[in-house]
Amino acid sequence: MVRDKTAAETKKRTTAKSGAKASKKGVKHPADPRLEVLAAQRIAIEGVNVEIDGGRFPAKAVAGQPERIAADIFCDGHETIEAALLYRHGSEGAFIEVPMEHLGNDRWEAWVTFSEIGSHELTFIVWRNLFATWRKDVAKKYAAGRSVGLELEEARHMIEAAYGREGRANARDKTALRDVVKADREAQKVGIADGERLARLTSTEVAELMDRAGPRTNLTEYRTLPLFVDRRAAAFSAWYELMPRSQSGDVNRHGTFDDVIARLGYVRDLGFDVLYFPPIHPIGRTNRKGKNNSLTAEDGEPGSPYAIGAKEGGHDAIHPELGTFEDFHRLVQAAREHGLEIALDFAIQCSPDHPWIKEHPEWFDWRPDGSIKFAENPPKKYEDIVNVHFYRDAIPGLWYELRDIVLFWIKHGVTIFRVDNPHTKPFPFWEWMIADVQARHPEAIFLAEAFTRPKVMKRLAKVGFGQSYSYFTWRNEKTEIQEYMTELTQSECRHYMRPNFFANTPDINPLYLQTSGRAGFRVRLCLAATLAGNYGIYNGFEICEAEPVPGKEEYLNSEKYELREWDMDQPGNIQHDIRLMNRLRNTHPALQEFTNLAFHEVDNPYVLSYSKKTENLRDFILFHVNLDPHDTQGFHFEVPLWEFGLPDEASIEVRDLLHGNHFTWHGKTQWLDLEPATRPYAIWQLFAPGAPRA
Amino acid sequence: MVRDKTAAETKKRTTAKSGAKASKKGVKHPADPRLEVLAAQRIAIEGVNVEIDGGRFPAKAVAGQPERIAADIFCDGHETIEAALLYRHGSEGAFIEVPMEHLGNDRWEAWVTFSEIGSHELTFIVWRNLFATWRKDVAKKYAAGRSVGLELEEARHMIEAAYGREGRANARDKTALRDVVKADREAQKVGIADGERLARLTSTEVAELMDRAGPRTNLTEYRTLPLFVDRRAAAFSAWYELMPRSQSGDVNRHGTFDDVIARLGYVRDLGFDVLYFPPIHPIGRTNRKGKNNSLTAEDGEPGSPYAIGAKEGGHDAIHPELGTFEDFHRLVQAAREHGLEIALDFAIQCSPDHPWIKEHPEWFDWRPDGSIKFAENPPKKYEDIVNVHFYRDAIPGLWYELRDIVLFWIKHGVTIFRVDNPHTKPFPFWEWMIADVQARHPEAIFLAEAFTRPKVMKRLAKVGFGQSYSYFTWRNEKTEIQEYMTELTQSECRHYMRPNFFANTPDINPLYLQTSGRAGFRVRLCLAATLAGNYGIYNGFEICEAEPVPGKEEYLNSEKYELREWDMDQPGNIQHDIRLMNRLRNTHPALQEFTNLAFHEVDNPYVLSYSKKTENLRDFILFHVNLDPHDTQGFHFEVPLWEFGLPDEASIEVRDLLHGNHFTWHGKTQWLDLEPATRPYAIWQLFAPGAPRA
Repeated sequence: MVRDKTAAETKKRTTAKSGAKASKKGVKHPADPRLEVLAAQRIAIEGVNVEIDGGRFPAKAVAGQPERIAADIFCDGHETIEAALLYRHGSEGAFIEVPMEHLGNDRWEAWVTFSEIGSHELTFIVWRNLFATWRKDVAKKYAAGRSVGLELEEARHMIEAAYGREGRANARDKTALRDVVKADREAQKVGIADGERLARLTSTEVAELMDRAGPRTNLTEYRTLPLFVDRRAAAFSAWYELMPRSQSGDVNRHGTFDDVIARLGYVRDLGFDVLYFPPIHPIGRTNRKGKNNSLTAEDGEPGSPYAIGAKEGGHDAIHPELGTFEDFHRLVQAAREHGLEIALDFAIQCSPDHPWIKEHPEWFDWRPDGSIKFAENPPKKYEDIVNVHFYRDAIPGLWYELRDIVLFWIKHGVTIFRVDNPHTKPFPFWEWMIADVQARHPEAIFLAEAFTRPKVMKRLAKVGFGQSYSYFTWRNEKTEIQEYMTELTQSECRHYMRPNFFANTPDINPLYLQTSGRAGFRVRLCLAATLAGNYGIYNGFEICEAEPVPGKEEYLNSEKYELREWDMDQPGNIQHDIRLMNRLRNTHPALQEFTNLAFHEVDNPYVLSYSKKTENLRDFILFHVNLDPHDTQGFHFEVPLWEFGLPDEASIEVRDLLHGNHFTWHGKTQWLDLEPATRPYAIWQLFAPGAPRA
Repeated sequence: MVRDKTAAETKKRTTAKSGAKASKKGVKHPADPRLEVLAAQRIAIEGVNVEIDGGRFPAKAVAGQPERIAADIFCDGHETIEAALLYRHGSEGAFIEVPMEHLGNDRWEAWVTFSEIGSHELTFIVWRNLFATWRKDVAKKYAAGRSVGLELEEARHMIEAAYGREGRANARDKTALRDVVKADREAQKVGIADGERLARLTSTEVAELMDRAGPRTNLTEYRTLPLFVDRRAAAFSAWYELMPRSQSGDVNRHGTFDDVIARLGYVRDLGFDVLYFPPIHPIGRTNRKGKNNSLTAEDGEPGSPYAIGAKEGGHDAIHPELGTFEDFHRLVQAAREHGLEIALDFAIQCSPDHPWIKEHPEWFDWRPDGSIKFAENPPKKYEDIVNVHFYRDAIPGLWYELRDIVLFWIKHGVTIFRVDNPHTKPFPFWEWMIADVQARHPEAIFLAEAFTRPKVMKRLAKVGFGQSYSYFTWRNEKTEIQEYMTELTQSECRHYMRPNFFANTPDINPLYLQTSGRAGFRVRLCLAATLAGNYGIYNGFEICEAEPVPGKEEYLNSEKYELREWDMDQPGNIQHDIRLMNRLRNTHPALQEFTNLAFHEVDNPYVLSYSKKTENLRDFILFHVNLDPHDTQGFHFEVPLWEFGLPDEASIEVRDLLHGNHFTWHGKTQWLDLEPATRPYAIWQLFAPGAPRA
């Protein structure tokens, strides 16, 4: 009835040996299933750190990286309890059991390094260890001078019950336990003192035997929780975004995939991992937009790649001027050889020429006059775009079609998708689609481009997006950066949302950069690359491109609407900083985690001070960034000597990670000037006393 | 398939009127139940304030008091959504629908005043209101000078669909909607301008009709959550504790229920609501404890009432020297006439003479030599007590027996139970027992006497205890009081845990009071009575009784082990303060809530400044308490003029609630001295400008 596996034994023993009277079985009670269900959950399990909305959504983890899983676990009374985390890949097969450790205040944790990617299930089991309780109590009694004769006999009964049980004890343990009892009986017979017998029965060896073989009394199991394990790139990646059509080097010639292949060496040399393209599909002609988002295109203007679909095809076709599928395959392969992954845009919107409109009118909204409904955000209208509607007759056909498009591109070698405006499409679609795709391809990663309200951003992360665009682009001041980073790294969302800090995008030419000059680009680069696990830049950032449409956060002459040619090697470029950042990210474990961020106080409101460290302190990086791109800022800062257990007047070895030189700081308080033009940020590695300075 | 009730209509309209081609039905998709389940939940509902552990435990509310129920609710896209809270008493019958209001940032709330006590269920429904979206959008388009002819036709289609629907529109609304369409058709025919037609179709009247009758598109329902509604005394009560056997006024005569009846006038005059007795059952003789907890009682010593059970009976019997059941009934009735409720102790422990030991040996632990296992906390042992064990053969017999004991005393007129040490009994037992009792007697209230670890205290509240002893007794300093109160009133536990602030108990003679003298008693009384909804004192508090067992937080000559006689009118008593506190609590609505507490800054670390107010500011009470019982503390404080929207230099009318006099404060900053002997605390009522000074 209850998961109390000692019940039978105990009863037998009680009635057989105690001489107590048999139970008065007079009263009959009606069966109460609720009582039995509740009784089976004697031990409380709650406050699970990776439980998202009561288990409604999976938490996220990364393969190969130790993950801390914690819960509040406690029982009535003072008996010793033990706990284990159970997890498994998928939803079938055996669970792997990991012992949990009590941290104090009823908090328990286990560390797991997942080896497989994909859906996992986890739960907890907890039980009372009555032999351990006995061992703890009897030691106190003996120390207090009390007789322990009966306690020794009770221990023997517990051991007998353990080797008598089916299941948990293996043959060798059974023999060992039987020998323990036999030896104690002998000892008792020949009059060995209680203290000596006690020493044997409370030995570590017997305790370990009983831990393995003894009953798990009041075994309580938590409900199963979902968890998704991603490959590492979901949590740690550096993105570079470019428009393939602008890669010919000549504004008059439409770029091709081969032109992109020619640029791979450059991108890889900067140190990036992911090369991301806006849509590469055929572009509609009806109501095509012209330069600078003008309502009508001149002849020969290329249009916006987000007006997807033409007579040449839709989301599963390639814009003919870019090349063929063969060219695309060659590009994917060449990128792979450069250590780069291609990420594609997944923008669920159609030009009025998209083939779906004729093939699937039931996926679109139609007006009383028979015309199709264009996208609009009243009073604005977007006549180069029509939207599918997802419900009514679009279920399930459209959902399957969209899923199949993702599968199609996966077949063509792409497993990272930047998803355009997912917040304007139903959450359930994403939840279903991403789970369905990842069930076949757990390596697939989806980045949500949702610049929207906070709860909507978080929901998208909950329903399956492995990365999320963030508010980073608009967090420029010290306090707002600190607040936002604290939320991202410390609040519950850290278990399911992984920001990707883009410093700019084709849609966002940040106000800060419009006026900051080169120093500001270096500042924002440093913040993006070191505050987040995932970050990215859109090409032009390295040459500090910031000319806006006047009064707007948009780029003038945006390549969203026209071809561009780029000279990334022009004077004033910040390629050196980019290379440095990516090299530091790739060589310093402390920069490969996200939630290990700490802010430090400095006496200047323009200076952000923070550090990232590995748990073992072998990698400890200290950052100071001057957020003011115009003026030198001087400030006192405290060397975090306390992190190394050092007193305030101690010295510590330091390496300047910008210049490579080593030096020593003496004492906690130091002074620094950060001059925007020459040194907008300082990055130091601190060495624990006696640690190797590799 | 999906809860999209417009699907049928829209489809009909699209195919009939738009001329769009019929769906290409080529591809067959396998049924995917997950897709359908997810699709039915288009709108996100999360972050429910009264959802405890994912709905595993009920939140708590109080009948007759407005409760705020809030959730995060949002949808993809920009369409207008609406939301309603649904609730019902019990788990059958119709839900009552309460519209929710959007507060901004995707947070929605509803206010409910529950009229019935007992178990409730609640959930949320949310839907997209397409007509409201149309109304919002068309206004913007018209204002921007765009033609709205098609939009008018679309509105007409929506209205037609609404009155054509089964169900939501009543006959009258249907007629009205039909008239709207007819009138618009007429207007169009005779060439009325679009603007005029628009004015009619976007009128409030039509909007309200459509709100009532229109489809609830993408209706999404949340899972059902439990909520328990208590009677008011669960959240607001003042307790007085005494030992009936010490009420004879003569230490040599065992007190009786009739002696207690003679004391009712005194207790009621002090203003208390609940009169609570430690156990009143027969007391064991075996190993009976003597005075001051000595291991052996002299002849004639009464023993501890917590050693329950003797040949005269157990938990369902009355200690003969206190009286008979008839006497008890008379006491309960007399208390009721004095406006007092009797609360009994429910202490699940037995003396070695308890009848259960013979009748139900299977509920106890036995040792190998056939002796019963006494209570112990090694190396301490308690040989006047044996404990039941709750599992093994004690299920379900013991559980039913204990439940039946509670039901037994309810039958005898007691519905408030102070439960002794619930943390040493299994959580599932409490969860089952309390729910089972409250299903029959929702008026039953259980107070958990669990001075234990924080998570254990909270768990007991979650599993059903309506009130909880707290750490208040040991929170004496300003910062620790502020921190603890903030946790209790602001964190999630405020939805399920209601502290009962006992200033002392027979078990706790607080160190603070041992050295504070009379001033300290007045301070602790004021804090207990005004910081919490529930509070209590154990008799002797009013005469500042604090003589300890040296070096311990225990009372010397505790009446737990001997009879006492009390003179509550002796000089130095603080009856006047007690009467004042209870009168203020009973006459000021602001003091009848718990989570409406705010702390204020003052420039003295010994002075606690706080206020309680009603939402409408009609009752606003400001407190200053000098926590130092020895020295006068002076300090600046700020009159919270900002709460009334007043500038810093404004004046405000004030009443001194200790002396009743009215006066005016001019300006925000004031000075006050609090002298322990004469004025350890100050309590003022502030009056909003123009408010009546009743």
